[in-house]
Amino acid sequence: MKQQLRRFVDREIIPIERDACDGPDLKPEIRARLEARAKEMGYWHVSLPEAYGGLGLGLLARCVMWEEMGRTIALPTRKPQIFGPDVSPILFHLNEEQKRDYLYPVIDGTKRCCLALTEPGAGSDPSGIATTAIRDGDHYVVNGYKRFISNAKTASFAQLMATTDRSRGAKGITAFLLDMDTPGVSIVRTQRTMMDDEPCEIALDNVRIPAAKRIGEEGEGFRFAQDWINVGRLRHGARAIGVIERCLEMASTYAVQRVTFGRPLADRQAIQWMLVDCYLDLQQLRLLVYSAASKYDAGLDIRYEAYSAKMLGDRMSFQAADRCMQIHGGIALTNELPIEKFWRDQRSMMITEGPEEVLRAALARHVISKYAA
Amino acid sequence: MKQQLRRFVDREIIPIERDACDGPDLKPEIRARLEARAKEMGYWHVSLPEAYGGLGLGLLARCVMWEEMGRTIALPTRKPQIFGPDVSPILFHLNEEQKRDYLYPVIDGTKRCCLALTEPGAGSDPSGIATTAIRDGDHYVVNGYKRFISNAKTASFAQLMATTDRSRGAKGITAFLLDMDTPGVSIVRTQRTMMDDEPCEIALDNVRIPAAKRIGEEGEGFRFAQDWINVGRLRHGARAIGVIERCLEMASTYAVQRVTFGRPLADRQAIQWMLVDCYLDLQQLRLLVYSAASKYDAGLDIRYEAYSAKMLGDRMSFQAADRCMQIHGGIALTNELPIEKFWRDQRSMMITEGPEEVLRAALARHVISKYAA
Amino acid sequence: MKQQLRRFVDREIIPIERDACDGPDLKPEIRARLEARAKEMGYWHVSLPEAYGGLGLGLLARCVMWEEMGRTIALPTRKPQIFGPDVSPILFHLNEEQKRDYLYPVIDGTKRCCLALTEPGAGSDPSGIATTAIRDGDHYVVNGYKRFISNAKTASFAQLMATTDRSRGAKGITAFLLDMDTPGVSIVRTQRTMMDDEPCEIALDNVRIPAAKRIGEEGEGFRFAQDWINVGRLRHGARAIGVIERCLEMASTYAVQRVTFGRPLADRQAIQWMLVDCYLDLQQLRLLVYSAASKYDAGLDIRYEAYSAKMLGDRMSFQAADRCMQIHGGIALTNELPIEKFWRDQRSMMITEGPEEVLRAALARHVISKYAA
Amino acid sequence: MKQQLRRFVDREIIPIERDACDGPDLKPEIRARLEARAKEMGYWHVSLPEAYGGLGLGLLARCVMWEEMGRTIALPTRKPQIFGPDVSPILFHLNEEQKRDYLYPVIDGTKRCCLALTEPGAGSDPSGIATTAIRDGDHYVVNGYKRFISNAKTASFAQLMATTDRSRGAKGITAFLLDMDTPGVSIVRTQRTMMDDEPCEIALDNVRIPAAKRIGEEGEGFRFAQDWINVGRLRHGARAIGVIERCLEMASTYAVQRVTFGRPLADRQAIQWMLVDCYLDLQQLRLLVYSAASKYDAGLDIRYEAYSAKMLGDRMSFQAADRCMQIHGGIALTNELPIEKFWRDQRSMMITEGPEEVLRAALARHVISKYAA
Repeated sequence: MKQQLRRFVDREIIPIERDACDGPDLKPEIRARLEARAKEMGYWHVSLPEAYGGLGLGLLARCVMWEEMGRTIALPTRKPQIFGPDVSPILFHLNEEQKRDYLYPVIDGTKRCCLALTEPGAGSDPSGIATTAIRDGDHYVVNGYKRFISNAKTASFAQLMATTDRSRGAKGITAFLLDMDTPGVSIVRTQRTMMDDEPCEIALDNVRIPAAKRIGEEGEGFRFAQDWINVGRLRHGARAIGVIERCLEMASTYAVQRVTFGRPLADRQAIQWMLVDCYLDLQQLRLLVYSAASKYDAGLDIRYEAYSAKMLGDRMSFQAADRCMQIHGGIALTNELPIEKFWRDQRSMMITEGPEEVLRAALARHVISKYAA
Repeated sequence: MKQQLRRFVDREIIPIERDACDGPDLKPEIRARLEARAKEMGYWHVSLPEAYGGLGLGLLARCVMWEEMGRTIALPTRKPQIFGPDVSPILFHLNEEQKRDYLYPVIDGTKRCCLALTEPGAGSDPSGIATTAIRDGDHYVVNGYKRFISNAKTASFAQLMATTDRSRGAKGITAFLLDMDTPGVSIVRTQRTMMDDEPCEIALDNVRIPAAKRIGEEGEGFRFAQDWINVGRLRHGARAIGVIERCLEMASTYAVQRVTFGRPLADRQAIQWMLVDCYLDLQQLRLLVYSAASKYDAGLDIRYEAYSAKMLGDRMSFQAADRCMQIHGGIALTNELPIEKFWRDQRSMMITEGPEEVLRAALARHVISKYAA
Repeated sequence: MKQQLRRFVDREIIPIERDACDGPDLKPEIRARLEARAKEMGYWHVSLPEAYGGLGLGLLARCVMWEEMGRTIALPTRKPQIFGPDVSPILFHLNEEQKRDYLYPVIDGTKRCCLALTEPGAGSDPSGIATTAIRDGDHYVVNGYKRFISNAKTASFAQLMATTDRSRGAKGITAFLLDMDTPGVSIVRTQRTMMDDEPCEIALDNVRIPAAKRIGEEGEGFRFAQDWINVGRLRHGARAIGVIERCLEMASTYAVQRVTFGRPLADRQAIQWMLVDCYLDLQQLRLLVYSAASKYDAGLDIRYEAYSAKMLGDRMSFQAADRCMQIHGGIALTNELPIEKFWRDQRSMMITEGPEEVLRAALARHVISKYAA
Repeated sequence: MKQQLRRFVDREIIPIERDACDGPDLKPEIRARLEARAKEMGYWHVSLPEAYGGLGLGLLARCVMWEEMGRTIALPTRKPQIFGPDVSPILFHLNEEQKRDYLYPVIDGTKRCCLALTEPGAGSDPSGIATTAIRDGDHYVVNGYKRFISNAKTASFAQLMATTDRSRGAKGITAFLLDMDTPGVSIVRTQRTMMDDEPCEIALDNVRIPAAKRIGEEGEGFRFAQDWINVGRLRHGARAIGVIERCLEMASTYAVQRVTFGRPLADRQAIQWMLVDCYLDLQQLRLLVYSAASKYDAGLDIRYEAYSAKMLGDRMSFQAADRCMQIHGGIALTNELPIEKFWRDQRSMMITEGPEEVLRAALARHVISKYAA
């Protein structure tokens, strides 16, 4: 699989990578073509459980996929990939009626969803969520403001996190299915980020959501979200492997070809050390990610490995892009090579979905409880 | 002067900084307004020698100006500034007839020039220049290819560097005045860089330049260019002071305001250390730049100080922007704040006009000859 | 003066440096010889104010001395230097009678003193001092425990810091003159440190000190100590300049001589970069230290410059020693070269008299108050 | 096994670790006691192949042992360990007669050997070996000078590397069995290093070695030595795991206990980050070492993994010791805690048996050949 994906990326995606996107997403014709090719190769609904008609690939196999796709900038990191619609794991917690209206349409591509979690005052801190959902008969009345919501514009519905009991902090958060055309929902504005994403701010003004659209019980919302956070963090690590590998390929190749002051860059020790640093990082990161994925597939808890893989992967891949930039010099700054895009994206990844400061605080608690006598 | 410029930047430029440019340059109406204000304040032709009607400010004073202007992203780093036309110091080496046709028109704004130096095979290595100028009667015939030429599209003429004797390396390089509409000169393409610059590639195909447009003697070209390279390097350092200071202001202010997990960021030691790192860099860089500028104004050689200031300033200011980004989190990634622009620009500056690898090689020779017994 | 001291160090001290000490201090005959030479050269009582018969050198001049003496490991950092007895500035706060009994004997070398400040629970935090001095008629009764007290064994008396009012924290600390042979004073044990120092632990068990031996008023103790802390911190920076310079000399010289794999080390870029890093640090540190010393001599507050110089100087000089070690390889690990001694000493300096964590906390408060809007 | 060794180290070795050595080796009575305990536990001749009466443990198992023993400073790193005599793998290349005279006596403890490889002009560069062995009838006449030879004083014989054909570089090196009492062999001097080792310099002056004491054929010497270099490098990595783990335990424990400015160190973010850095390094290093050891036990080449493990392990463990020192403050500088010893030893390890510069050069060749298109 790894070899097949590698060839696919090398031959069909990398040649078009700098022109594949229009703003934050793939151009429609390119998306259509690549999705068709994914189906042909048999990679469709790769992560969807077999019970729902997917391949149900284990995490190790998916890590290999993310790694290989990470070698190109063509596929926007925060957008649906090309191996079938993104099906949020939260949706597997729906009841049968909800599944009929939301899960199955997502699987067959007739609906799209987004996750409305982050707020101006609650980035990495779920207990800070200030959007309230107050029970009123067989409805909830929701008021609040969401920020940095990816894919909101194209979503049919949102998985909304709101607090039904602020006194309980993270345990007071409840999840809802919110149709985006519900009265009171408005996309206030779109921001443009340096990773070419366009997340939205959403105002929720006396939005009435039927109680039947609550996911699970009150207070279970954050648990549902957490459910797939470990996997998402490991995905950062897996993707980073691909980025580092591509940067190593580009930088090594250029170092051999480029001659300055009469000698190829590859002869210079400073350049050699940069390449070796990338290689050392790659070796370690791959062991970390594969080992964590194997543990996960064996049913073990990988929380701390996921923290480490997210943090180290994002940082190491950013540094690989930075070194690749330095080795290429001026041409790396142009948008003719993918380097500056990798560089912007990987720095952004260091902040999204858990900045280092937050992950380190959690790791520190673990380390101290484990090693202090 | 420092206080006045600071107020000018704070009140008149920073409020419009994110919308001031259209592509690689200031919007014309904004340029016109800011230049008018510069004249009003008495800052016009600041660096032009008094003999030519300018203020003839010393280098220390100009460093203070660059520092203050460095606090905003509004003014593109590779474009004419707002204190009068950029007059390349090479032009003071012209003879009287040449001055009449090129220097004075630049001073009064009726002509613009660019510097055609860099080539695909000669970035930091002048001895690699492959563009040839071959004497043919009272003309030179020029063939070659130039890359990364800023401001080529709007230039009336170029200061062209070509080799009249390849066997002599850097000492075979000769400078010419080349009208951009001369037959055989074509701007082949424009590249877009991550610092929003649009440098050009220029093909020179049997271009005939009258011998009367040679600047100085054959072989003096690189010396003319070098003449102002020290100053240009110190300018990197001076500008960097302003970037670090602005990042410190933004980061400190945000750290005091932003509350996560119940406490302001400013209470957290990791954030405090980032601020302190910026401050320590700022203290040292300012001493280094001011000390070098004072030496220059006293007629002393500042080659090694200029290397250090360029290298340290670009790196320190990039790191300040990076820390400022990390402290702000997600909003720093949007184009509503200047942070991601500072961050892209300062990383680019680390490559342009002398990457670290080249400067360190020169410094190493100096250090070894100075300290080895 | 700089040149003279440099010659003195190069010719008379460096040749004997690895054998000059016996344990934590200079061998007596070497001390005698070097002190005699210092007198000959006219460097005696250099920092003692002229009013007391000294040279009363300004801080800039003393920084130059510390810098030059920092080039050798011969003179133990925590011991009396060779330019006259160490006269603690606290002693200038004595009244006339106290001066007669303590200050003048120190100046003429008949008495020696130590500073009894640090405690197991109060390293960098003076408000943690738990040694109590309770007034009892015309005496104070002192109980407590002091740790890391340098030079306690050879001292005739201690400048003791004890709290007379714990509720007032640092402002409740009072200074006393304590004869070391007072009943109840016992040196419990001596520790050996990796900088070859032998600080002592001192138990104070119902020690009775006459009220006439109190220095100044109750609560003034910490202010007296602070008085010279700024100077002490700058001294770290000045000494570090000398260490870096010596390491640069040794490393450059060896890099030129040592051939491996057919080429001198000086040809290798990794080695060149290490040398350049030392040089860049040296340039910046010297500007910082000299600038701060000049401000001090002009009567200005240098608290923050002193923090920076202490922190950066100790760290930069440790890194210089570390790079010098790496360049020399195996022979740097032997006690035939001074490198491993510089390396141990400078790492130790990073902890003594204010570890980075404490200084950064103070700097952070300053930075935030200065830059936050 | 891991648990048993951990208990043994915790209960029987750590309590005596600071007093276990006298100079460069264990005190004889302590060595005797620990070896007796090792036999009791069944850990005797652990790495000796079963064919020679040993346990023949695989490399993964031996890595676990090195890791556990790495948790204490009691056992000198360059000296025989306590699990049976060190049997150099070179000795398995002897012929039967040689085995009878040298291998079996080493196994039963009646003889000891050292490796005489390094020279003043040939540290990491075997082709620089200048000691010559010139055939003279049925003898070789050897002249040369060896440096940094560990255990030379107590050795009965040396495994000597000399060149029999300088024109062939590393392939001209031949190995010999050299009785230390052979005329012409003299230990010129002993050096003391900062890792408390006492390597010797050995002069070889017309030393006559019978041809029957040549190991293998002429030119095979370096191949024999290389044979176990990979294992030796991985051992650095395994030992480093133990050092990091011990430092994490000490630092975490102290951080919880030590209160400054009213709060335990463990509450401070700067301290937490240091602990997390150690933990991240530990996670990655353990995966790297175990993975390489498993590959080796499966018969695969681990050259590049061994380079990485040596380089990263030594560096990471030094940094762990350095952070542990910083967290403990002043008491870490005393010889009452093992921290300053770990710190000196691990820095030394970064230089011995392959400094980073040499390993990186080899890795760079591998990386470039693997990744350049």
